[in-house]
Amino acid sequence: MKKNIVLLFTILLSSNFLWSQESNVQEIEINLKVSELLSKMTLEEKVGQMTQMTVTNFEEKGKPGVFDMAKLKEAIQNYHIGSMLNVPNPGAPTIQRWKEVITIINNETNKTRLKIPVLYGIDAIHGSSYTAGATLFPQQIGIAATFNTAIAKRGSEISAYETRASSIPWVFSPDLDLPRNPAWSRMWESFGEDAYLSSQMGAAMVEGFEGNDVGSKYHVASCMKHFIGYGSTTTGKDRTPSIIPERVLRQFDLTIYETAIQAGAKSIMISSGEINGTPVHASKHLITDILKTELGFQGVVVTDWKDIIYLYTRHKVAENNRDAVRISVMAGIDMSMVPEDYSFYTDLLDLVTKGEVPMSRIDDAVSRILKMKFEVNLFQNNIADLKDYPKFGSQEFIDVAYNAAAESITLLKNSNAILPLDKSEKILVTGPTANSMKYLNGGWSYNWQGENSDSYAADKFTILEAIQNKVGKANALYTEGANLEKEDDAAIQKAVELAKDASKIILCLGEKNYTETPGDISNLYLSSSQIKLALALSKLNKPIILVLNEGRPRLISDFEDKMSAVIQCYLPGNEGARALADILYGDVNPSGRLPYNYPRYPNSLEKYNRKYTESLGDEEQNNDAQYQRSYSPQFEFGTGLSYTTFEYSNLTIDKSKINNTESVTITVEVKNTGKLTGKESVLLYLSDKVASITPEVKTLKRFEKISLKPGDSKIVTFILNQKDLQFVNNDLKWISEKGTFKIQISDLTKEFLLQ
Amino acid sequence: MKKNIVLLFTILLSSNFLWSQESNVQEIEINLKVSELLSKMTLEEKVGQMTQMTVTNFEEKGKPGVFDMAKLKEAIQNYHIGSMLNVPNPGAPTIQRWKEVITIINNETNKTRLKIPVLYGIDAIHGSSYTAGATLFPQQIGIAATFNTAIAKRGSEISAYETRASSIPWVFSPDLDLPRNPAWSRMWESFGEDAYLSSQMGAAMVEGFEGNDVGSKYHVASCMKHFIGYGSTTTGKDRTPSIIPERVLRQFDLTIYETAIQAGAKSIMISSGEINGTPVHASKHLITDILKTELGFQGVVVTDWKDIIYLYTRHKVAENNRDAVRISVMAGIDMSMVPEDYSFYTDLLDLVTKGEVPMSRIDDAVSRILKMKFEVNLFQNNIADLKDYPKFGSQEFIDVAYNAAAESITLLKNSNAILPLDKSEKILVTGPTANSMKYLNGGWSYNWQGENSDSYAADKFTILEAIQNKVGKANALYTEGANLEKEDDAAIQKAVELAKDASKIILCLGEKNYTETPGDISNLYLSSSQIKLALALSKLNKPIILVLNEGRPRLISDFEDKMSAVIQCYLPGNEGARALADILYGDVNPSGRLPYNYPRYPNSLEKYNRKYTESLGDEEQNNDAQYQRSYSPQFEFGTGLSYTTFEYSNLTIDKSKINNTESVTITVEVKNTGKLTGKESVLLYLSDKVASITPEVKTLKRFEKISLKPGDSKIVTFILNQKDLQFVNNDLKWISEKGTFKIQISDLTKEFLLQ
Repeated sequence: MKKNIVLLFTILLSSNFLWSQESNVQEIEINLKVSELLSKMTLEEKVGQMTQMTVTNFEEKGKPGVFDMAKLKEAIQNYHIGSMLNVPNPGAPTIQRWKEVITIINNETNKTRLKIPVLYGIDAIHGSSYTAGATLFPQQIGIAATFNTAIAKRGSEISAYETRASSIPWVFSPDLDLPRNPAWSRMWESFGEDAYLSSQMGAAMVEGFEGNDVGSKYHVASCMKHFIGYGSTTTGKDRTPSIIPERVLRQFDLTIYETAIQAGAKSIMISSGEINGTPVHASKHLITDILKTELGFQGVVVTDWKDIIYLYTRHKVAENNRDAVRISVMAGIDMSMVPEDYSFYTDLLDLVTKGEVPMSRIDDAVSRILKMKFEVNLFQNNIADLKDYPKFGSQEFIDVAYNAAAESITLLKNSNAILPLDKSEKILVTGPTANSMKYLNGGWSYNWQGENSDSYAADKFTILEAIQNKVGKANALYTEGANLEKEDDAAIQKAVELAKDASKIILCLGEKNYTETPGDISNLYLSSSQIKLALALSKLNKPIILVLNEGRPRLISDFEDKMSAVIQCYLPGNEGARALADILYGDVNPSGRLPYNYPRYPNSLEKYNRKYTESLGDEEQNNDAQYQRSYSPQFEFGTGLSYTTFEYSNLTIDKSKINNTESVTITVEVKNTGKLTGKESVLLYLSDKVASITPEVKTLKRFEKISLKPGDSKIVTFILNQKDLQFVNNDLKWISEKGTFKIQISDLTKEFLLQ
Repeated sequence: MKKNIVLLFTILLSSNFLWSQESNVQEIEINLKVSELLSKMTLEEKVGQMTQMTVTNFEEKGKPGVFDMAKLKEAIQNYHIGSMLNVPNPGAPTIQRWKEVITIINNETNKTRLKIPVLYGIDAIHGSSYTAGATLFPQQIGIAATFNTAIAKRGSEISAYETRASSIPWVFSPDLDLPRNPAWSRMWESFGEDAYLSSQMGAAMVEGFEGNDVGSKYHVASCMKHFIGYGSTTTGKDRTPSIIPERVLRQFDLTIYETAIQAGAKSIMISSGEINGTPVHASKHLITDILKTELGFQGVVVTDWKDIIYLYTRHKVAENNRDAVRISVMAGIDMSMVPEDYSFYTDLLDLVTKGEVPMSRIDDAVSRILKMKFEVNLFQNNIADLKDYPKFGSQEFIDVAYNAAAESITLLKNSNAILPLDKSEKILVTGPTANSMKYLNGGWSYNWQGENSDSYAADKFTILEAIQNKVGKANALYTEGANLEKEDDAAIQKAVELAKDASKIILCLGEKNYTETPGDISNLYLSSSQIKLALALSKLNKPIILVLNEGRPRLISDFEDKMSAVIQCYLPGNEGARALADILYGDVNPSGRLPYNYPRYPNSLEKYNRKYTESLGDEEQNNDAQYQRSYSPQFEFGTGLSYTTFEYSNLTIDKSKINNTESVTITVEVKNTGKLTGKESVLLYLSDKVASITPEVKTLKRFEKISLKPGDSKIVTFILNQKDLQFVNNDLKWISEKGTFKIQISDLTKEFLLQ
């Protein structure tokens, strides 16, 4: 007992946590348990805890999905590995199968000296997406488009529930990347280009995953990823170099992590990229100085796939694996997703033995891992009792996913109110994405690249099926029209012929399923096979409704002017086609907003929160030359039409001048002036009119989604505080400067003075 | 006299100059003169010296090119302005006219109290390009392609000669920008994407301009521009924000300026851009701390056009003009290219009077300006005696320009040795750039956008004229084929018809004349009107020689595979077409090399000196997915074919191990194994195999251009020193690290160890 009191004091002195309420009692208890357990462990057992391996490593050769018990025993008994990830072959087990898998692993750990359970982590990306029968939501980019944090939170709660039903306590989600190049293959895994929207959505997902008690059987530990700057590669290719000055990193990217950490996120995954020539896995400055020390992050820092090995094979900052292990562990890595061999274990053991990595660093890492194991209640609760999960894949959950899709799908253009359609008219559904679940779900669906959605989600509706289900097969003609990649003039001709029987065309274009490097592209234009189809159909002079089913904004400027309506579906998940069909036919009023600028041209990828020098106005034109207006996105961030109309009025601000401690309260009245009930995301932008760091034209600071019946109005209130007026200066400090700020909501503006 | 000795000591103590040889005697004398003159000046006269205005400001309303003497008097007598720039309307005066203009200005300054002459600066960009009849060279990107610094130096000598013949002592050249986005509208004004090549070429130009005595009647002061980071805007648009971490800025961009400063460059123009949110004109860190203090730059720092005003109208870092003037002068600006009003003068006067800008800052600025005026010998030598310039526009100079073009033009592809052509065969010359001088010269030719080349250079040959002159009109059919911008099916059809009479097609495609913001583009592909022409002609199955006449690498991947040969002309200037024709017909053997990566796709703009993570090799392919190879430029940096063949052998290195003080000597034998005399640029690349900042795959460290007769061989020797092995680390220090380095020349490699 005395020893425990000493330990308690040690913990109190050594950690930064705040003393408040009973959660801290639990934390103290856990810290005591961690210390006690740690004190019993050998160096080998500690290094083993820091080792994470893919479960497929332990499969019998030639027998996918079957454990080779000798290999499993070796990993757990000899190498003491602390964590596993990934999915047994052939992928996407049922919850029953997951239970068997985890039980086998658990039985093995139960034979060890200290019986420390393996922490299993999973890529549950849009729902428990590696479990057969789980509820699949829109991918994160669609969640962002809802501008509704309640949807983000509820979705993650369900994902947590279904992941725990799969006997897994840890998900590699949410994605907190801030993509700066829209061509990036993981753009759709993010919340888009705005840091504030991303931070609010990210925090909501963390709350949904972890709940009030991450150790309960319905919650899981989340993993923020990919710390940091991963989404900002210069050329847009996955895992290629980023250039981000620390000032910019702090003003934007870091705020997203900060918010998620405040929301309680238990772990973090490091970016596979390099920033300004330093791989993040090798950056003590970013991992230890900023993340662990400055932000006080107490959770587990895990690498991404093979990234310590890549420090010497790809990034070339290490001479060999041993060097790479030393650099990354000393940078602050707690757990290595090795994931296919024992190189990390072997080299780290040697490094500690020879004094090149101090035991204090190992103890820090292992303490964090053990703490998370206690927090998720792994010692008591690591095999699901399936009776506890009656709602797995239930209608209740499906309805939530459906609603998320319905609120995400974004109406970008609707000339002459061509939408909604009339159920009695005969339409042509065509295009390569019209009849497959693959393109609705994208990557990270049942397996890595998501190519098996059509078999795993065979009972779900494709776009074609959803439309035919709604209006009957006779009113919804179909032909594929084009292959996603290969040009096929005969297929186009068939579509043109069939279109002659239809009054309108629903043209479904987009992208194949992909993630990571296999999704790299060199040309942001939509594939030429699809552009040809669009141009051929447009010659018929029939209204075309372009339905986009894509992870990133593929350029459509070659034919967008010939489309009557444009709907962005993003990757809406298993229920997305039903939601789309309901929107097309007016049973749902669309309310999504674009969470990024949709570019018009490939070499003009400006963000909405650009600098003033990026949008020269007419006043800059002169007689000597005509200037091409450089800032002219196809659709701007925040674009999203409704079938009803909203009128904004009475923008008020409670003070015209404030000092540097005051906040301002802004109200605006929003009225539904149309004939349909509708949802509206009210967005508040702030502009700092002059600043010592060039200010952005406008930056999103608040948003709220409301629902209004026809004729109804509502006053929406926002409070901006001092932090909202600040930016990061060249000394890397958050500061505000005296001067005028402009508030903008819809097309209303109001100014106030910070004095 | 006593006073002068005190002054001398003050100067010795306050400046950093080195004591060496007689040049310093001259420098001391000049510094004494400066101090003496400065001591006599009023604050108004000082602030006037810092003011630069456009000469067109003083023209009579409605009478282009005619001085309004009252306005001129006001500027010089009342506002004491110290400098002028630009060209009187209607542009490009003869040397006689220039003499008249400068004489009028000079007469006005002679009426002032101190008789300080106006320092006239001019955009002499590729030769004295604002003077009628001057010798126009290839634009800088072509000079870079020669890989021949002697050409760069000789061209600048001639430019200096012809500028002094125009009674002007100061040129806004060379351009030392390092473009990171090939879409940038001023790409062609730079030396391309490599910092080492740029630094060598830049220094050669400075030496050519300034000679051993910048005060002689045949030399001018140069102006390095645009300090710093101007060429690196994120979206490629001119004068939009750049993101460049200081580590990267120091490792690449800054080295170019450092080399030019060491070569003696007398002045520097500041970038209109902003880096990481700080406009360079507002950056004390960059201008004073780095440029003036760290690099010890003693010359004049001038703004770019209107850039102090833009600090508040565009960049929004200043509340008003006064604020902008204070910020920029305190940042270290010496002279403001205002250039159309007295706002700088008035506000700066007020700022000094009220103590917001100290007199010491003013004295520093004015001393630098006066010093340059003495250095260029302006007090004695500011009107040209035209008899001194018999070689102006002479055949001797034209031959140098021709030779520069001949060595710059780059043969990128030559399938089946389709080139050189036979003079007796009938060919079709077509394409929108085939018959105009505008596209050979580009912008900064006779006026800003260069639209008047066809009248000013009417006696020079277009591509068509040069070819017809060589082979006769009967053997060189011609039709325009396409407009540069507008699609024209009839024109294409005409070209297709005419091509049937020809055995081969010379297809001249490219860009309009442009510079700066009017040259902004959003799509790097060549214009669709030209792509259509190329595709239509390619259906004839006749060999097509694609001649590119463009300031930046416009994408040709839609049809490049259908071209038999590809020749990059860049913007080769007035003699370029003759050089091209001589290459096409084998009278000149091409020897240019591409000074940038020519991209294949718009969203894949990797540089040649990429990081390893940007070029995943085949070993990274796996079973789960096919990776698109991201690094695959259309033509890589350094590409350049010859009509002869060169064989590289016997790569030697004098040491296999060195310590951190030693250099290495590398030799390689190059043999002309073909049948024609040819020039070959031998390029030496270095790779640091492992480094704590991720190393580049390879970086150019040395080059030498040699000429070899058939069968002859030559041993080329390079010495690499310690600095060549260094990079800038995160502490912003140049360091080298122990380990293996790889030398690559052609396809030969050799390694050595730094221990």
